[in-house]
Amino acid sequence: VGAARFLRGLRSLLEPDALNVIVNTGDDESFFGLHVSPDVDTILYTLAGLSPLAQGWGIAGDSFRCLQALGRFYPETWFQLGDLDLATHIYRTDSLRRGQSLSQVTAQLARQLHVRQRVLPMTDDPVRTFVDVAGQGPLPFQRYLVRRRGRGRVRRIEARGVERARPAPGVLRSLRQAGAILLPPSNPFVSIGPILALPGVRALLQRRRARVAAVSPMVGGAPVKGPLHRMLRGLGHEVSPVAVAALYQDIASLFVLDKRDARLAPRIAALGMQPLVTDTLMTTPGRARHLAQAVLRVLDGSAPGRAKSRS
Amino acid sequence: VGAARFLRGLRSLLEPDALNVIVNTGDDESFFGLHVSPDVDTILYTLAGLSPLAQGWGIAGDSFRCLQALGRFYPETWFQLGDLDLATHIYRTDSLRRGQSLSQVTAQLARQLHVRQRVLPMTDDPVRTFVDVAGQGPLPFQRYLVRRRGRGRVRRIEARGVERARPAPGVLRSLRQAGAILLPPSNPFVSIGPILALPGVRALLQRRRARVAAVSPMVGGAPVKGPLHRMLRGLGHEVSPVAVAALYQDIASLFVLDKRDARLAPRIAALGMQPLVTDTLMTTPGRARHLAQAVLRVLDGSAPGRAKSRS
Repeated sequence: VGAARFLRGLRSLLEPDALNVIVNTGDDESFFGLHVSPDVDTILYTLAGLSPLAQGWGIAGDSFRCLQALGRFYPETWFQLGDLDLATHIYRTDSLRRGQSLSQVTAQLARQLHVRQRVLPMTDDPVRTFVDVAGQGPLPFQRYLVRRRGRGRVRRIEARGVERARPAPGVLRSLRQAGAILLPPSNPFVSIGPILALPGVRALLQRRRARVAAVSPMVGGAPVKGPLHRMLRGLGHEVSPVAVAALYQDIASLFVLDKRDARLAPRIAALGMQPLVTDTLMTTPGRARHLAQAVLRVLDGSAPGRAKSRS
Repeated sequence: VGAARFLRGLRSLLEPDALNVIVNTGDDESFFGLHVSPDVDTILYTLAGLSPLAQGWGIAGDSFRCLQALGRFYPETWFQLGDLDLATHIYRTDSLRRGQSLSQVTAQLARQLHVRQRVLPMTDDPVRTFVDVAGQGPLPFQRYLVRRRGRGRVRRIEARGVERARPAPGVLRSLRQAGAILLPPSNPFVSIGPILALPGVRALLQRRRARVAAVSPMVGGAPVKGPLHRMLRGLGHEVSPVAVAALYQDIASLFVLDKRDARLAPRIAALGMQPLVTDTLMTTPGRARHLAQAVLRVLDGSAPGRAKSRS
């Protein structure tokens, strides 16, 4: 939700061809034999203007009749796939079986949904995020998040396959050429982490650290949404935006803190990162735009001899 | 439609375990990467009581939202797949990919739809019916029937793959053991024909000819539904129930003529088949039941020393 809202802010500021979105595929999952890429779809639907504004996923006005009928044949139908949404998964599955790569299919989906920004899945290779929860063992991410509602003590998070996965075509080039690289207010372990773990990505961001900003996914010491606090605690981190900043210390020069966490700014500075304190709660499109603008402005100002109008 | 109505009549007369249905798979088709078995589904939905009574296909009260959304991604969406219906195709496709056979999947679908009769696809091997239409070349059956509305001069009909296809498990045994074998009022070329063309089937029916009855799919010299008249004409046959009877001459001892075609009874008899003249237009469930009863009664009477109560 945070990433999608932030993206709406960016979309309202930038020309479509100035915005490349690199998307996590670690929570891709197969349901009923269909390849579902929840993060890619959320980004596509957001950019296409199809997302329900309040809800973090799916297509506005969707219905669930097919899913209900699938319940006759399958014991589990907890992942909410709408009738309109299913068309995306049917098309993706069909195209992958015909030999297209996930990034080719994603480009096709974007074109057919009239999305003009470039949406890049992080990799065309299989990566699956597992969350190891005490008493339950490693759970595939969607099962952990949706079925188990992100409950339980997190012992380990693993993006299986990521060390052998190659960044999808365009990912490294896009990161090399970007005027600004923004890590949105998303979960650093399961949403941003798998992208950073791809061979070559982290090293590239370390070299481009001056152009990288991260937005805190926590406000007032708690995540805006989701089980991030349990993950931080379970993995031995402080439950605080400072812990998130520390995860990005080597790759981001700017860290955006919510104004409710202003008192933490000196600790961000102590990590060697510039703190930017502002309102990060994107409760309206105007606020999302304002946040995106503030981040871009600071990054641009910090670039020696490089203003946004020229980037 | 004719077969489905006739089947409703039979269902109302027979215990579920007394009725085995062998179904054509020659018009199976892949749409959007999903394996659709239109004839199998029509039979399953009919026996499950899900079919719309008037319409020959699909599930009563279905909607078409997913299909509409698929229209964003595919140029052609002429085959009407409803949201509820899609669940069947998604499940079938998933199960086939997991290594199940079409007859295993069909048995599962039947069980989950609470169908107690045995529904056997004619084969687990791929068979595809093509209709060669003047000026258009060989068309896959659904494209010919639905997309082209069965128009054009038929030059040839071919069930590709049928000579190498093995009858599905249970098909030959069922035909060997049946007290009565009924060819419903269906298209003899594209609905019944592929089943008869399977290795072993025709020879078996020739041996069991005394127990085989066929119901004319034509009334008053025209097919009740569909392009049968064009097929008969295009393939050089007389457009008449007599031509259909002639196709079954070697395998059926009884041929059911509609009362509007009573004058043709002597020509049926001349083929060496017993004509049964009755009302074959199954405009109500009562008439369908009456027709089924009439056919079974004559077959039973003709079996030496074998009454229906003992079969």
